[in-house]
Amino acid sequence: MTTAEPSATASAEHLVLALSCPDQPGIVHAVSGALAEHGGNITESQQFGDPSTGLFFMRVQVETAAPRADLEAALSAVARRFGMTWKLDRVGRPVRTLIMASKDPHCLVDLLFRQRFQGLPIEVVGVVANHPDLEPIARSYDAPFHHIPVTRETKPDAERALLDIVHAGDVELVVLARYMQILSDEVCTELAGNVINIHHSFLPSFKGARPYAQAHGRGVKLIGATAHYVTADLDEGPIIEQDVERVTHSDDVGEMVARGQDVERRVLARAVRWHAEHRVLVDGRRTVVFS
Amino acid sequence: MTTAEPSATASAEHLVLALSCPDQPGIVHAVSGALAEHGGNITESQQFGDPSTGLFFMRVQVETAAPRADLEAALSAVARRFGMTWKLDRVGRPVRTLIMASKDPHCLVDLLFRQRFQGLPIEVVGVVANHPDLEPIARSYDAPFHHIPVTRETKPDAERALLDIVHAGDVELVVLARYMQILSDEVCTELAGNVINIHHSFLPSFKGARPYAQAHGRGVKLIGATAHYVTADLDEGPIIEQDVERVTHSDDVGEMVARGQDVERRVLARAVRWHAEHRVLVDGRRTVVFS
Amino acid sequence: MTTAEPSATASAEHLVLALSCPDQPGIVHAVSGALAEHGGNITESQQFGDPSTGLFFMRVQVETAAPRADLEAALSAVARRFGMTWKLDRVGRPVRTLIMASKDPHCLVDLLFRQRFQGLPIEVVGVVANHPDLEPIARSYDAPFHHIPVTRETKPDAERALLDIVHAGDVELVVLARYMQILSDEVCTELAGNVINIHHSFLPSFKGARPYAQAHGRGVKLIGATAHYVTADLDEGPIIEQDVERVTHSDDVGEMVARGQDVERRVLARAVRWHAEHRVLVDGRRTVVFS
Amino acid sequence: MTTAEPSATASAEHLVLALSCPDQPGIVHAVSGALAEHGGNITESQQFGDPSTGLFFMRVQVETAAPRADLEAALSAVARRFGMTWKLDRVGRPVRTLIMASKDPHCLVDLLFRQRFQGLPIEVVGVVANHPDLEPIARSYDAPFHHIPVTRETKPDAERALLDIVHAGDVELVVLARYMQILSDEVCTELAGNVINIHHSFLPSFKGARPYAQAHGRGVKLIGATAHYVTADLDEGPIIEQDVERVTHSDDVGEMVARGQDVERRVLARAVRWHAEHRVLVDGRRTVVFS
Repeated sequence: MTTAEPSATASAEHLVLALSCPDQPGIVHAVSGALAEHGGNITESQQFGDPSTGLFFMRVQVETAAPRADLEAALSAVARRFGMTWKLDRVGRPVRTLIMASKDPHCLVDLLFRQRFQGLPIEVVGVVANHPDLEPIARSYDAPFHHIPVTRETKPDAERALLDIVHAGDVELVVLARYMQILSDEVCTELAGNVINIHHSFLPSFKGARPYAQAHGRGVKLIGATAHYVTADLDEGPIIEQDVERVTHSDDVGEMVARGQDVERRVLARAVRWHAEHRVLVDGRRTVVFS
Repeated sequence: MTTAEPSATASAEHLVLALSCPDQPGIVHAVSGALAEHGGNITESQQFGDPSTGLFFMRVQVETAAPRADLEAALSAVARRFGMTWKLDRVGRPVRTLIMASKDPHCLVDLLFRQRFQGLPIEVVGVVANHPDLEPIARSYDAPFHHIPVTRETKPDAERALLDIVHAGDVELVVLARYMQILSDEVCTELAGNVINIHHSFLPSFKGARPYAQAHGRGVKLIGATAHYVTADLDEGPIIEQDVERVTHSDDVGEMVARGQDVERRVLARAVRWHAEHRVLVDGRRTVVFS
Repeated sequence: MTTAEPSATASAEHLVLALSCPDQPGIVHAVSGALAEHGGNITESQQFGDPSTGLFFMRVQVETAAPRADLEAALSAVARRFGMTWKLDRVGRPVRTLIMASKDPHCLVDLLFRQRFQGLPIEVVGVVANHPDLEPIARSYDAPFHHIPVTRETKPDAERALLDIVHAGDVELVVLARYMQILSDEVCTELAGNVINIHHSFLPSFKGARPYAQAHGRGVKLIGATAHYVTADLDEGPIIEQDVERVTHSDDVGEMVARGQDVERRVLARAVRWHAEHRVLVDGRRTVVFS
Repeated sequence: MTTAEPSATASAEHLVLALSCPDQPGIVHAVSGALAEHGGNITESQQFGDPSTGLFFMRVQVETAAPRADLEAALSAVARRFGMTWKLDRVGRPVRTLIMASKDPHCLVDLLFRQRFQGLPIEVVGVVANHPDLEPIARSYDAPFHHIPVTRETKPDAERALLDIVHAGDVELVVLARYMQILSDEVCTELAGNVINIHHSFLPSFKGARPYAQAHGRGVKLIGATAHYVTADLDEGPIIEQDVERVTHSDDVGEMVARGQDVERRVLARAVRWHAEHRVLVDGRRTVVFS
């Protein structure tokens, strides 16, 4: 096989392997063995065994000059032996991403900016919004914009259009960047594990609508934001990242919203980066984040 | 009057005035006028009008050599005119405080330490606990310790004993420093506005029992603590202060408890200090904190 | 006078007054008196006397239906009596601002975004850069772009061009949004108190060039940014705001730069907002920030 | 050998291995191989290769029922092959620690409290102070107290007495908990890598004496603390942990000191815990912290 793909062996590739499986002795040794046999040099690695779920998680970055197919064959054998879910990717490969938004631009702009100027490893396949307002922003970053209005009646059609875009664009990740619509159970299920939402509160506080108004009414001293995977169970998906910002008695709801937008975009950007770098692994209702 | 109280005029006192009243023009001018007429020099001052409740809040520190009674008479007149709730105190006067605890020492020790070594302006009248474990700690800081066990049957007696201690000691502030019992509505009402509790979660998340276990189960990335005034409505009293600490997937419930204790004691200490310095004013379900 | 300006009295204006003067008794009373006489209702107010400099600082927001000229006359009299430096402005009036940048877009984009979408009260009169790279960004936000290259030889000409733009545009505030050139002492002096710079370190750590490389070499665990007024004394002007972000051993210089950009833009945006809202008062080498 | 130590094999031990060596392929595989051969189950593991120093770092926690001596022999062979510095210890074994202090109690009390009540894995062999003030605190935690005054003349004797205590007590870790004396180069060299100091500033800002007064004069908006290993090069040893706390214009030097003490004790406690858990590895002038 090496003769068939001489160019693949010409220089070292930097790869990332992320895996999970039921915990048992020997996993690290087997994985590192497969890597070592292919001349792999580990540059960064983290492992974690969760006693509460009995699962083991591993993420390893490795430099190797071996042909990818050889390494994949070796890892497949290891994966079968331990019952692993695994993924092998090139470090830094941009993940094909669809961003969904509504009217608020802060999260969308932030992701587009980081993609262009700060090395966020995503490729923005398109922007879908249920309102037309954000089209100029998408265009200014050369991202194809799809205006798909959603009403109770048109929701099934809208979701079909969404899935068409996902399929046509080989979309790997969907980011709900303050998309104010709820996806149907069917879409949640089809895209499970590949949809990240930013919720504008410190979950599980203030689930549901108008969280900043709820937070103001309750007189909290910190407001927060939560990035999580979307599941059919609204606002209950595994949390990837959270952060907070201090507010005072003199901040009204409007000021809390403005401050909150800063946390939202920061939290969402971190979650998207970690996901795109294969640092997030789902562990039941929780996530393991090898940040 | 100055002749009657010569000693009072001998040197300047540093006073703090905290007040609230329905908002209207002229409040600051009237108050600062009363202070200026008595030779008062304002060293620090903050005001806030809450449009959502229509209330006005003010805290002012002032140096004056005038007799206290003269100043109080002048302020009384202003207070009557504007319908004020107000308090005048000497800056730094230790507030007579009763600390209630159970078995966990971290909040109790922290308050006692700050009182002795870091200028926390409280005088610890006593420590009440429903278990005997913390007696050595209280004793090592020379604080009288009262062991008052609480069972369903003895709760009325226990609360009577508590109120006896409060009355006998002229207690101004009761701090629930991880006191794991719920005070009856009667006690809450009698001591309203003068009881501070530390709740070991970022309210309104994880109300009720075992918040760290709830937080671990939900997979949150930050844990928090909340200091609030106690009302008959459990875990719903006005929030004084909150803070959070980052946790990761590798922290089990026990580690979250340990990290949480750091936030709890920090948040509680801030709330007690601000209350004792008359920086916290209740504004409906919220608080104004002139920190 | 009210008859001469009927429209001015038609409805209430929301004004902000910021002042400083040598500390002495009676200041608050005199100011609040002038406001009260003109029907002013104080909505937010803060005062501070600095014992180390002997100066007193005050910021007050007031609603009044009185003609502005009347109020100004009354305040002028008070200001003369106490030797005040003072400023009266309409709450929320956009401050005429010139942004200077070089090649890095993160601070520029952030300010433009916040101006357009998040109520940052500035009006962007123009963008000056010593490189052409950021022109498309400025244009996408409709901000006039001036490319003024700077070499050792052309620096005097470049600064003259800069001052021409400042004067022609009635510029009130110059923001150095990662402008990598040092302004001459003459320009610093002429614009004193009206130029804000973002320094990419937690001053006074890592003054001078390449602070992130210095920080990485020293192995710090937090990196920071500092917004300060520019003075002729490089990196020594009064600090307005600082913040930090956690880094770990696995962050190389490039990653520290990327993380640092987040702190830089956040810190700069806060400083610009507070300055534009007249919340920042210079107190010798320090600032009073009524945030 | 298993017959000679039957009890060692009776049940699984939880061990921690920390190592560093020049980076090359195969390290993880060799180490995990040695562990796997002895039935080791990895519960937590982290690796890091530093391109700037060419060093590789690894920390692994493993459960094994194998005799310790067998495992040590196997690891010794691996260590020789890769030129490793390594340490194998039981997870949670208390590290024999000497705490040095002066007059300020906050760091000393915090460490003693965490040792007794919060599972900080140290055994306090003794407390050395150059003033007698803290003796009651040490005694209240049953820690032997040594008053060793230090003057210019007696410093050599004092350091000899210190080293005697270190040797007699098999001290593994010395913590300078606001010990205001500078250790001689000889002592620094002899105890290299085993002395942790808390510096009351955010290094490298405000090196040297009276950092809070320096910070106040400079008008910083955050104050910090730094825990670092002590080297002969004052305030320049590898940093283990840093943190900051917000201050405002209204905080005078005294208030900054009080706030600073909170950061100091927090930062020192984290550094001591991580060191005692073998999570800190020195990487030239920097540290790798597997927290």
